[in-house]
Amino acid sequence: MSGTCAPVSVDYINPFLNAAVNVFRTMAACELKRGKPYLADGTHPTHEISGVIGLSGKAIGTVVLSLGEPVALKVTEAMLGEAPTEMNGDVVDTIGELTNMIAGSAKAQLEHLAMSLSLPSVIMGRNHRVAFPGDIQPIAIPFESAWGPVCVEVGLREQTP
Amino acid sequence: MSGTCAPVSVDYINPFLNAAVNVFRTMAACELKRGKPYLADGTHPTHEISGVIGLSGKAIGTVVLSLGEPVALKVTEAMLGEAPTEMNGDVVDTIGELTNMIAGSAKAQLEHLAMSLSLPSVIMGRNHRVAFPGDIQPIAIPFESAWGPVCVEVGLREQTP
Repeated sequence: MSGTCAPVSVDYINPFLNAAVNVFRTMAACELKRGKPYLADGTHPTHEISGVIGLSGKAIGTVVLSLGEPVALKVTEAMLGEAPTEMNGDVVDTIGELTNMIAGSAKAQLEHLAMSLSLPSVIMGRNHRVAFPGDIQPIAIPFESAWGPVCVEVGLREQTP
Repeated sequence: MSGTCAPVSVDYINPFLNAAVNVFRTMAACELKRGKPYLADGTHPTHEISGVIGLSGKAIGTVVLSLGEPVALKVTEAMLGEAPTEMNGDVVDTIGELTNMIAGSAKAQLEHLAMSLSLPSVIMGRNHRVAFPGDIQPIAIPFESAWGPVCVEVGLREQTP
């Protein structure tokens, strides 16, 4: 494997942090209050639902948007105008779309990396964990919202030319 | 959202099917016996561990390699020459790398789609489910091996130019 083993630089974290705040504010009128970013070592369970999307270009990466069921339901209601009563297809689509928007907004701020997005997938299950390859040190950015906690994890590796 | 809503065509499934068989054979001396592919609607729990990787180019997609703990441990032993006793970093790296190789081999067979890979991530947790956006109909390809079942799920959407 090639590339750096250092944690994702702050220069690369801020675009994802800003993207999450802006997307939640714009799409769901939900204010995210950021906590202290930390190295995500994959040993912590994430929240019950995680949107996962890949990035590739001059860097390759993965973004994980992780949130609990109450936040997922509330955010879906805010975006679709109707309250889902369970974790149905609407919730999956909403979380997939939010993940897509956050990664898309961050990628636009990181234009020099010329990255494109993959298709989002959505993982559901209590106590699931998301781990990255050992040579990547993903950063987790925790947020608080009125509906509960939200977390954005970013793993990114610049490609050696 | 743009693009087709049809299930992933057989033309796009065979490269992933062949890739999985070849990668398991070459890397782990493990013969995969293919079952009948089916539409994955995201309601079935996957196996305990899932490697997820994104693809982007003229099509965008996601590949999920899902397998149970016994297969994950055996395949790690076969690839690293040492038996892990638990789901540790070696297992995560091995499943991430296998997912990367399967997607990489399939992408080479789908050269006209000019896709590149994202970083793999690895999901762990009993009863986790992987769902795709509602306008994607991912195909699941189930396999049997001497060590237990393995499944490859592929969701792919051609980009409208």
